[in-house]
Amino acid sequence: MKIYEFKGFPNPSRVRIALAEKGLIDQVSFISVNVPEGEHREPTFLAKNPWGTVPVLELDDGMVISECTAITEYIDHLDGQPSLTGRTARARAIIHMMQRRAESGLLDAATDYFHHATPGLGPKLELNPNKAWGEARGERVGWTLRQFDAVLAQTPYLAGDVFSVADITAFVGLGFAEFAKIAIPEGLTHIDAWRRRIAERPSVSAA
Amino acid sequence: MKIYEFKGFPNPSRVRIALAEKGLIDQVSFISVNVPEGEHREPTFLAKNPWGTVPVLELDDGMVISECTAITEYIDHLDGQPSLTGRTARARAIIHMMQRRAESGLLDAATDYFHHATPGLGPKLELNPNKAWGEARGERVGWTLRQFDAVLAQTPYLAGDVFSVADITAFVGLGFAEFAKIAIPEGLTHIDAWRRRIAERPSVSAA
Ligand SMILES: N[C@@H](CCC(=O)N[C@@H](CS)C(=O)NCC(=O)O)C(=O)O
Ligand SMILES: N[C@@H](CCC(=O)N[C@@H](CS)C(=O)NCC(=O)O)C(=O)O
Repeated sequence: MKIYEFKGFPNPSRVRIALAEKGLIDQVSFISVNVPEGEHREPTFLAKNPWGTVPVLELDDGMVISECTAITEYIDHLDGQPSLTGRTARARAIIHMMQRRAESGLLDAATDYFHHATPGLGPKLELNPNKAWGEARGERVGWTLRQFDAVLAQTPYLAGDVFSVADITAFVGLGFAEFAKIAIPEGLTHIDAWRRRIAERPSVSAA
Repeated sequence: MKIYEFKGFPNPSRVRIALAEKGLIDQVSFISVNVPEGEHREPTFLAKNPWGTVPVLELDDGMVISECTAITEYIDHLDGQPSLTGRTARARAIIHMMQRRAESGLLDAATDYFHHATPGLGPKLELNPNKAWGEARGERVGWTLRQFDAVLAQTPYLAGDVFSVADITAFVGLGFAEFAKIAIPEGLTHIDAWRRRIAERPSVSAA
């Protein structure tokens, strides 16, 4: 398998952590796409992923998958033993719910803030910034973190007793929110404890 | 199982169609939440779903799941025979990719247009509209439809040869885009043919 990405960017990190959790990192060649220079908007890359985003997974027969939710779903089902997305209907439901909330309210909200309320990737790439929208999304990050703090007061991981893709997405989202200098609410002690727990995982410290 | 919803609204429709596809409609009691009157923002409903959205699935033991992606994942895995979200790693990957694209670029983009670029649910509920953002999202709907038209030139359904949740999300999204009066690009013949094919399914005509 190949992964097209830009190392250190948040969405590619989600996939690297999932691969490490599944013990699959060594089976992947990583190909760097220079997103800060706009290489992801050139015809060669758009021919692979018309949506113009990294990461992209390319299988040996040429099949191409974008979107982290889809790539992690693939990785997790490769061995028929999903461990990051849940095995039962009930586990899958909670994990997908928290994954969606972590994506829309935390990681995607933080990247919206970055692209719209800060200079983002610079004027060559940020074509239509909307500052008020970016700021509203920054506030959404704080709101989501407070909700997650309440969830983590009850259970060690976002989707319950076991680590899942939802934790990966939220962990990466929180790191990016700090990088983008979004105001993080004070006193989220359950988030803090959860974050330390996640940071200790070998998959995360290596990513 | 119970589903809290407001009949006719787009996200609840996604779940109704999925339930009908799985032959499960009769096992569900539907409870109406008066979204146009703001009932979903009252403490009783927020205690169930702090995110304040419908649909919400409540299981007999009280477990509560929001987010259509999570609810449909649950419904589809109840019998251990997922038919709407794919069985193999590969099928799951394509379906989740197209589902995510249909959600972010079509249904969610159309609802953003509705809430931000039109009066939406009215001034009591639309607290922070951002017209320019809503209009950008309306353009995203057209862009996504053109991309999907190219996909549907190759395969009968969005994720390939078989009907999936991605088709449900996109079908509902397209209907809502028209309801919100978003300009739909002309000449999308593959979208048109696909839409007729989907509309003929008993699950869809009943929803
Ligand atoms: N929903 C996508 C998001 C991917 C995404 O936005 N990736 C960023 C890098 S972290 C990107 O490619 N940005 C390109 C741009 O903003 O033009 C996913 O899950 O993969
Ligand atoms: N991502 C959510 C979206 C749910 C959603 O936005 N539902 C609408 C009704 S179609 C709603 O509850 N709106 C309430 C509001 O806008 O205040 C899902 O998949 O369930």
